[in-house]
Amino acid sequence: MTAAACPLCTASGGVLVFQCEKFRVIRAEEAGFPAFYRVVWSDHVAEFSDLGVEDRILCMAAVSVVELALREHLQPTKINLAALGNMVPHLHWHVIARFEWDSHFPSPVWCPAQRPLHSAALAVIQERLGGVALTIQRELSALTPAW
Amino acid sequence: MTAAACPLCTASGGVLVFQCEKFRVIRAEEAGFPAFYRVVWSDHVAEFSDLGVEDRILCMAAVSVVELALREHLQPTKINLAALGNMVPHLHWHVIARFEWDSHFPSPVWCPAQRPLHSAALAVIQERLGGVALTIQRELSALTPAW
Repeated sequence: MTAAACPLCTASGGVLVFQCEKFRVIRAEEAGFPAFYRVVWSDHVAEFSDLGVEDRILCMAAVSVVELALREHLQPTKINLAALGNMVPHLHWHVIARFEWDSHFPSPVWCPAQRPLHSAALAVIQERLGGVALTIQRELSALTPAW
Repeated sequence: MTAAACPLCTASGGVLVFQCEKFRVIRAEEAGFPAFYRVVWSDHVAEFSDLGVEDRILCMAAVSVVELALREHLQPTKINLAALGNMVPHLHWHVIARFEWDSHFPSPVWCPAQRPLHSAALAVIQERLGGVALTIQRELSALTPAW
């Protein structure tokens, strides 16, 4: 079930980290937020509750895997989770590692910046993204055969 | 498990709609967003992945109940779900009915407004909140005995 005009049906939407039949994980390329991931459901549905109960559980298990990988590798100040979809109504969960030094903290990433980018701190995060990807791939590969 | 300085440990945080041992549902009183609900976990934990797997499933089942009640009674343009916690790191899920006429759409509710409040449309939503509350209470009462 795809939609011809939907950017998440017609393109990956970011750096592909993991893909299975039901969903994929991508890393968004948003300036100032190197650890900004998305769990994108494969079917073109708008709302979380459009999924059946088993798929909701699978979807949040995937979100949890990404969250735990970010916590393990990056020790963020906070994780931000969100499924908004006001611009692109195709179910996708934002999973974002937030840091007290980041350009927007404590505001949501969609709001105006609070301060300039902290290039040195961002470079440290960037170096750890390979480890994040490996953990996500390992954990989601273990999770998805059961589904 | 509570924290003395946490506003969600020391007060309800909004109009109480439903309460059980593990969580409560409140309606926030945010100007321009009459259908802004929160599922607040009872224990003072910061992150969704601090919950055990069974509690994560219960938590998202509660979020889904609220989402479905909003869809049934209000037919919103979109539902917004988010667990941010940058300001109050006590696990709470925002469940917000969004409308194309609302003051911020399609921006997130935390960002600057796009247009003035639409008083007539807000009044229609306000009148339907009693029905939303009854549906949430009925569905969550059915859900929680199993847990």
